[in-house]
Amino acid sequence: MRTKAAVALEAGKPLEIMDVNLEGPKAGEVLVEIKATGICHTDEFTRSGGDPEGLFPAILGHEGAGVVMEVGAGVTSVKPGDHVIPLYTPECRACPSCLSRKTNLCTAIRSTQGQGLMPDGTSRFSTLDGDPLFHYMGCSTFANHTVLPEIAVAKIREDAPFDKVCYIGCGVTTGVGAVINTAKVEIGAKAAVFGLGGIGLNVIQGLRMAGADMIIGVDINPEKKAKAEYFGMTHFVNPNEVENVAQEIVELTKTKADRIGGADYSFDCTGNVEVMRAALECTHRGWGESVIIGVAPAGAEISTRPFQLVTGRVWKGSAFGGARGRTDVPQIVEWYMDGKIEIDPMITHTLSLDQINTGFDLMHAGESIRSVVVY
Amino acid sequence: MRTKAAVALEAGKPLEIMDVNLEGPKAGEVLVEIKATGICHTDEFTRSGGDPEGLFPAILGHEGAGVVMEVGAGVTSVKPGDHVIPLYTPECRACPSCLSRKTNLCTAIRSTQGQGLMPDGTSRFSTLDGDPLFHYMGCSTFANHTVLPEIAVAKIREDAPFDKVCYIGCGVTTGVGAVINTAKVEIGAKAAVFGLGGIGLNVIQGLRMAGADMIIGVDINPEKKAKAEYFGMTHFVNPNEVENVAQEIVELTKTKADRIGGADYSFDCTGNVEVMRAALECTHRGWGESVIIGVAPAGAEISTRPFQLVTGRVWKGSAFGGARGRTDVPQIVEWYMDGKIEIDPMITHTLSLDQINTGFDLMHAGESIRSVVVY
Repeated sequence: MRTKAAVALEAGKPLEIMDVNLEGPKAGEVLVEIKATGICHTDEFTRSGGDPEGLFPAILGHEGAGVVMEVGAGVTSVKPGDHVIPLYTPECRACPSCLSRKTNLCTAIRSTQGQGLMPDGTSRFSTLDGDPLFHYMGCSTFANHTVLPEIAVAKIREDAPFDKVCYIGCGVTTGVGAVINTAKVEIGAKAAVFGLGGIGLNVIQGLRMAGADMIIGVDINPEKKAKAEYFGMTHFVNPNEVENVAQEIVELTKTKADRIGGADYSFDCTGNVEVMRAALECTHRGWGESVIIGVAPAGAEISTRPFQLVTGRVWKGSAFGGARGRTDVPQIVEWYMDGKIEIDPMITHTLSLDQINTGFDLMHAGESIRSVVVY
Repeated sequence: MRTKAAVALEAGKPLEIMDVNLEGPKAGEVLVEIKATGICHTDEFTRSGGDPEGLFPAILGHEGAGVVMEVGAGVTSVKPGDHVIPLYTPECRACPSCLSRKTNLCTAIRSTQGQGLMPDGTSRFSTLDGDPLFHYMGCSTFANHTVLPEIAVAKIREDAPFDKVCYIGCGVTTGVGAVINTAKVEIGAKAAVFGLGGIGLNVIQGLRMAGADMIIGVDINPEKKAKAEYFGMTHFVNPNEVENVAQEIVELTKTKADRIGGADYSFDCTGNVEVMRAALECTHRGWGESVIIGVAPAGAEISTRPFQLVTGRVWKGSAFGGARGRTDVPQIVEWYMDGKIEIDPMITHTLSLDQINTGFDLMHAGESIRSVVVY
């Protein structure tokens, strides 16, 4: 079939809107009509050429929602008409990682996905001239129709609005999940969130949901304060206004009984390795845990004195919020529909596919939290 | 009273054996006759001048066992005649750290202990000329008699031999506890232990006790192999004989079902920050945990790419094996008496106090696992 897509022909160039060919689903695959897709920093990381593993020409996009149109042989868990969210982190429930009960990082199709291909080692997308186009993160939601492995779609309730729950395909789950699945924050905790972009706001609402007492937001842009407070931030620290942001958080969290101070949990949502260090070092001696969510530039390294860890701090990371896609994503959709988490105020711009490059411009200008393309 | 001690008069000099004055216990303190003390790398770190926080003149030693001779006002948990192990990490059971249930790093007397003083801010030790001598790590077991806060002694069974269980005061608990309390290793795990000195051997026997399937020892000295195998090591890697030690461990741990590979847990027992990095990076994608036990040189920093953490590895540290001294140390003594852990083969040299500098020489020559001074 033919479908319309925004194609990244080469690194650093705007996406080009064009018709492309899409082969139907093979065994174990499903054809999905994408109804809406978010535009995420990770798409931009690849589009810009910043990702050393980026492949071109490719159809980017990994934060979508849509409807199953057709299923390949052997597909049993979804059927045409089902509403789904594509999963860049699949959940096969059979690989050593899925069976470990310790990680969400399913490895069933990892190698082909990294090569921009379906599990059989080929692409379903091609130009009208017949030249193959790479898939992206196993999703390619910047096409109106895409083919996905069955293990890479989460079935969701049918009354959930596509133009909102598409954000659960990446940003919401990454932020809320880091709190719930990775850090396992408990009621009454004190937490610090570095970077108040979309991921940071979702971490904040995850912390509010988890019952955290103090939710300290950190950003160099004071204009982020109001929206962060709306989502649950209780304290704001501007690193440009204090001598040492880690020490400032330690002081803020001291109580009469606890003269040591420090956040119980911290989250880096910036991708800046110096900020990651501050996020670790602002946590509480003995038990503070710091979770890295942001993606650092290629080659960048984090550092600290080992004493920070020997005295009880833990440094960890989170990918896709530690969520098992098929199991946890439908639950997050439920939370949204129940009003336990909010998405609507974070969708600042809704665009057509033809306007997709405007979405990247808005991101660069810092004017959007999330732009969503509606097909 | 007068007692005999090995005194560190200044950094970098051999200890001097001399009579010193010891004041009796004040309220909340106990006087202990030390019967035996181990000589630990941490004592050497301070003696040599390597520790920037080292204080002189001081009575070092923190790995002892002895008998309570006298108790100060208000002491209720021990009485004269009780056998005890001094605790450089106390357990007050009342501070925010003890009450957190998340750490063993009691903070009740941290500031005075760091200043080489008892909790009231004074020293019990002085020279015969009346000049004060600093306490060390709240213990000062290189004196035949010492005064300790009540919260810094663990009461142990009376049939346990002092010249063996003194090692539980630091090395045994640090190694075994890192496995049990910090990493919480489960049956069937695959683990890598970097550095096969005394701590490494204790990590290995902790892993054997925890039911680990693979216990991979790493050391540049092949002569360490036999003893490590005696304590439970199943595989040995010499970093000088492989291209990349982390990659070698990843390969060793691959199975037919798991083509990713990596240790479930790793332990750094070297204090070398480059080794700490390898220890992290040899762990399994998705869930590998690396525990830093070794003490790094002042100012040294650990580094890695954040991707290592974002893909599921956890970096943490362990101090005193995560053990709550008064609660867990008596249990480890029980394990020793029941034959569940071994200590005797690790005590390679027994010395008198007059020979204590020989113990440091043996450590430098790599000839001892542990030297113990018996009073």
